[in-house]
Amino acid sequence: MTMQKIWDLIREMTLEEKIGMIHGQGIFHTKGVERLGIPPLWMSDGPMGVRKELQDDNWAPKGTTDDYVSYLPSNTAIACTWNRERAADMGCVLGQEARGRGKDVILAPGINLIRSPLCGRNFEYMSEDPHLISEMAVPLIRGIEEQDTAACVKHFALNNQETRRLDVDAAVDERALRELYLPGFEAAVKEGKTKTLMGAYNRFRGEHCCHNHYLLEDILRGEWGFDGVVISDWGGVHDTMQAAENGLDIEMSVTSDFDQYCMADPLAEKVRSGEVSEALLDEKVKNILVLMDRLHMLDGVRKSGSYNTKGHQEAILKCAEEAVVLLKNEGGILPLKPVKRLAVIGENAGKMHSSGGGSAAIKALYELTPLMGLKMELGGTVSVEYAPGYQSDGEKSAEQENWQAESLEERAYKASYKGDGSDGAEERRRELIREASALAESCESVVLFCGLNHEFDLEGCDRPDMKLPYGQEELISAVLDANENTVIVVIAGSPVDMEVFADRAKAIVYSSYNGMEGGLAVAKVLLGRVNPSGRLPFTIPKRLEDCPAHSIGEFPGDDTVTYRESIYVGYRYYETEQKAVRYCFGHGLSYTEFSYGDLKLERREDGIYGTVTVKNCGSSSGAEVVEIYVGAAGKNVKRPVRELKGFVKVFLHPGEERAVDFRLPWKAFSYYNEEKRAFEVPEDEYSVCVGRSVGDVRLVQTVDIKENE
Amino acid sequence: MTMQKIWDLIREMTLEEKIGMIHGQGIFHTKGVERLGIPPLWMSDGPMGVRKELQDDNWAPKGTTDDYVSYLPSNTAIACTWNRERAADMGCVLGQEARGRGKDVILAPGINLIRSPLCGRNFEYMSEDPHLISEMAVPLIRGIEEQDTAACVKHFALNNQETRRLDVDAAVDERALRELYLPGFEAAVKEGKTKTLMGAYNRFRGEHCCHNHYLLEDILRGEWGFDGVVISDWGGVHDTMQAAENGLDIEMSVTSDFDQYCMADPLAEKVRSGEVSEALLDEKVKNILVLMDRLHMLDGVRKSGSYNTKGHQEAILKCAEEAVVLLKNEGGILPLKPVKRLAVIGENAGKMHSSGGGSAAIKALYELTPLMGLKMELGGTVSVEYAPGYQSDGEKSAEQENWQAESLEERAYKASYKGDGSDGAEERRRELIREASALAESCESVVLFCGLNHEFDLEGCDRPDMKLPYGQEELISAVLDANENTVIVVIAGSPVDMEVFADRAKAIVYSSYNGMEGGLAVAKVLLGRVNPSGRLPFTIPKRLEDCPAHSIGEFPGDDTVTYRESIYVGYRYYETEQKAVRYCFGHGLSYTEFSYGDLKLERREDGIYGTVTVKNCGSSSGAEVVEIYVGAAGKNVKRPVRELKGFVKVFLHPGEERAVDFRLPWKAFSYYNEEKRAFEVPEDEYSVCVGRSVGDVRLVQTVDIKENE
Repeated sequence: MTMQKIWDLIREMTLEEKIGMIHGQGIFHTKGVERLGIPPLWMSDGPMGVRKELQDDNWAPKGTTDDYVSYLPSNTAIACTWNRERAADMGCVLGQEARGRGKDVILAPGINLIRSPLCGRNFEYMSEDPHLISEMAVPLIRGIEEQDTAACVKHFALNNQETRRLDVDAAVDERALRELYLPGFEAAVKEGKTKTLMGAYNRFRGEHCCHNHYLLEDILRGEWGFDGVVISDWGGVHDTMQAAENGLDIEMSVTSDFDQYCMADPLAEKVRSGEVSEALLDEKVKNILVLMDRLHMLDGVRKSGSYNTKGHQEAILKCAEEAVVLLKNEGGILPLKPVKRLAVIGENAGKMHSSGGGSAAIKALYELTPLMGLKMELGGTVSVEYAPGYQSDGEKSAEQENWQAESLEERAYKASYKGDGSDGAEERRRELIREASALAESCESVVLFCGLNHEFDLEGCDRPDMKLPYGQEELISAVLDANENTVIVVIAGSPVDMEVFADRAKAIVYSSYNGMEGGLAVAKVLLGRVNPSGRLPFTIPKRLEDCPAHSIGEFPGDDTVTYRESIYVGYRYYETEQKAVRYCFGHGLSYTEFSYGDLKLERREDGIYGTVTVKNCGSSSGAEVVEIYVGAAGKNVKRPVRELKGFVKVFLHPGEERAVDFRLPWKAFSYYNEEKRAFEVPEDEYSVCVGRSVGDVRLVQTVDIKENE
Repeated sequence: MTMQKIWDLIREMTLEEKIGMIHGQGIFHTKGVERLGIPPLWMSDGPMGVRKELQDDNWAPKGTTDDYVSYLPSNTAIACTWNRERAADMGCVLGQEARGRGKDVILAPGINLIRSPLCGRNFEYMSEDPHLISEMAVPLIRGIEEQDTAACVKHFALNNQETRRLDVDAAVDERALRELYLPGFEAAVKEGKTKTLMGAYNRFRGEHCCHNHYLLEDILRGEWGFDGVVISDWGGVHDTMQAAENGLDIEMSVTSDFDQYCMADPLAEKVRSGEVSEALLDEKVKNILVLMDRLHMLDGVRKSGSYNTKGHQEAILKCAEEAVVLLKNEGGILPLKPVKRLAVIGENAGKMHSSGGGSAAIKALYELTPLMGLKMELGGTVSVEYAPGYQSDGEKSAEQENWQAESLEERAYKASYKGDGSDGAEERRRELIREASALAESCESVVLFCGLNHEFDLEGCDRPDMKLPYGQEELISAVLDANENTVIVVIAGSPVDMEVFADRAKAIVYSSYNGMEGGLAVAKVLLGRVNPSGRLPFTIPKRLEDCPAHSIGEFPGDDTVTYRESIYVGYRYYETEQKAVRYCFGHGLSYTEFSYGDLKLERREDGIYGTVTVKNCGSSSGAEVVEIYVGAAGKNVKRPVRELKGFVKVFLHPGEERAVDFRLPWKAFSYYNEEKRAFEVPEDEYSVCVGRSVGDVRLVQTVDIKENE
């Protein structure tokens, strides 16, 4: 459809019809203009699959049997693969499932930076590093949009905590904003070509992000040239004038008084009174019609989708397999050796996570737990014996199912499980530990599944600390006492404090919420049927006090939260300050070994071209993530000691060697100069570091860059 | 393991150890003898998958997440495929899943003859015809047992009704017993080589079937040479002496007073007192040890299994696709033409059936409903709009989940749904019909899913009549009034009365409970993505009064139920008496057409060899079931006009022609001579009929057989 035709359509529309298109007329859709052949726009949560069907005017589920869907690995899990192909796959699955369910816009991916380990929505986000976020988000968005479904990248910007998320003002300096918090969104817009974007709940420099002039008009539409649709987070609009003027196209909210939304009757009134120009409205309607046209909703042939296909399940399994991170494997106790009796301990072994987390909750067609996965793989010949070891707070789980039905007011946070205070609960807790220890003692092999769940990795709340809840520390110690060969598997969407067991346990595995096949994937890794190749997308610090957001900056702040740590988030801080961490950014082991050699760099017009030889020098096939960091000596400008600027995942058979090529554009050497309001490459001595993680650099070469080069 | 070693083991055992092996020491297992390396024997329900884990001493579920399993098409559905390969596939899946769940014996298949449309367990059985039962059961059993899992063919014999099933005496003449009720079991033993067999609850000639001398000793072990293990139905043992002497090996029951079972303390007491010879006990233990040895439980390498594999799901889908029966398709209104809005009506469109039915209930990993299947296939481009149309009695559904936990006393049957008698319920019913009719009127295409569910197809109860419950007849009439192009899909495990719509509806489809992929399978058939090839394994009579068990014989009888109809069950009666039926045995249409020609027969030593040419003369690929019936003129002996003696399923592309070979052994011409107590082929004129169903014979040739030939 030509722009001319779109403007012709707009000219035929009444004010009321235009207003109907720019705000929610149901919990998840706008109104169309039937007489002009314009359909409503249907949206759906969320990153881990297509949300179940809800009533049109409230948050109660419809309860039919046709909205079970594929449950995808969380965005954190996808990031753990460090494989752009897996991200592309997951985008395709999500886009097809959304189309199959009749949706036009899927509210995904979530790409806010993981600033603190405590943010309740970290599991919906990807990383503490903007390069990794950008590289994983772009193929994910393209995958979604190849299916004639629009992605909706969220939450723009600085929604880095859940505490007071509706109003907190995120005070961050311009350099950190540009170097850390915006690059993912810029890549999503410029390279991913995302068709829509969601404003954040919080404020930035006084204005709410859903109608923030600097973010939406100056940067998004101005600097980046975004010509898609900006959708508010649900209930994120607070000011009719700002909403009209500052780049927002669609207002969505959580209540059913649709006509009372800012961009409904109140805005119509201002247009009628002349306070707001109708041209502003037409611009929004134009953006929406362009979106519909791009999705072939107005004419042409639109792709059809599907959901719950075997192909989707297989792609999800493949992603889940690559998302498992082997943190430690002393004496090669993994993969598990054949045994007659295997002890499986910990509630997370048998816990399903799909139905929790908030708006990302999924009505999964199925979810294979680790306990199920182990039993499926061990085929009845091994006796897999289970003890829960600890118990989460079931009431809270049941409650969260309807969390959004309650209210969007921040709920008082329930601190970590301390039982109900009665002797009975304490006795029960001890009994669970005793049972688990006895089982561990009696079995040759023990796997303990600990971690978090969606009582903690939860929209609307941040965690109170980094500790494992429900008395798990005591459980783990007791089980390690009972059997020193216990393998610890941590399932969590955020970093957790591992100090109580990290030195003692011989093997530690990390997995985020890894989708419907996640339990099978981790079982395959434990049994050596899949060679782990996941890498941490964030640092696991030793303790909360080590985290820059908590030690230097503020978290969660008050009316304002000040990011005093500036650009020193995550490994940028730990590496620069030489602060010891438990597991560094990019870390992840394999059952085989890789060696590096022959690093060569070549300067060209558009940057540095590199090549490095990687060899699988172990005895099993496996994939290696070659990570490329750039460090600046920091002669004139304070710079992090090392920043991720490239990575390549390469699969190698035993003995196989491959030359891995990479390119570092000049921007990879740049920093944001606040005075010049631009990125620039300062004269400096740079190091190009190639290795297995930010802390395991194998090869380094230096590059001198002169002024005005 | 040699028999010598087995007897050596027995000699080392104490009386108490032997007793522990021959009765339940948990709801689903016996006791092993650990000091001799003999494990317990683990059993599990049931035909449609491996039952969920229950507590060891009661019927409450364990509630862990590792016992979700593949939900297979019911035995009726498997029979609808008329394809031995599908039966073999389902056997493999069931055997592997049982092994994967650590079970030794799977209580399947159910092969009792479908004598009346009302039997509550018809869905667990296969057919009204012994040849079809035999041919489908044998590959199913072999498939199970290839996996080192034992099949347990049930219920031996004459468990043809649920009413008073624990005590009713099934009075059947010897000829009908031999010609109809036993051949399936004989084939299971002799050809299927089933390793175990379950006794029936009911009595036969005064003795309970679980310790019935004639059935177990004379026929099963004597005539057929069965050397496997006979297991009682749960709670089917009533007499210690009979149990000891009449061929039973393992007594299972429903209560937790395991030591009080007949074959526990009471039998031990009789052995100690000399009333029962210990040799009888040793024989049972020997049978059990032989079974364990055959399953490689004592030495050797036992196959490992798995469950919930993609391969299992794909095999289940393939079986489900072939199990859908197209009964009527006037004017080719199926497959459905492309539309923008499709109305889907009827609770069965969205109802999950896996969790009901009694002991066959499955904790399915997932279950695709027809509504889901249609939406998956239509991919978001067609608006699929749903109205329930009628409502089943949810309370009863919830109740049946724990039916076995209650008691095995026959429960009072709740007659078909009549609402709660209040005006509100009646008003609600009418409102549902109004809604459905309005939707049907507004859409181009309508599919109405009606039928039964496991409130009716239910262990422990028979249906009161053949009518559709919940006011469905009124609903169907109203929807057909609203839109004459409504396609009717009947989902039921038994024949139902279709008179109210069979003439009016242009298209009718039948599906039994078709497993976890059943909804997708029926959607694919409706949309023409799969060409239907299922055939009815039973007659659908016009009305209950037409059924021989009800018109000539008794059903459900009283203390005794007399099978006065003798050998005239199902089509043997309708065809012989030329009684009009709604859809005859073997009936099923295709989207293509097949022609038959060149029937040639050749007499050889071991029977008649035949060949017939079948051609796909339509325009789409499809599979044809070539059915071969033998009829005897009945000069000297009263014979059914026609009996199924062979069938071949053949897949043909458009225009493709194939010669189909078949063999009719002399036994195919025989009847059971009660005086001689043997099968014989009487001098007579026989017809060999080849066609699409018992009522659609395309080619006939006669064969004269002389006395003593």
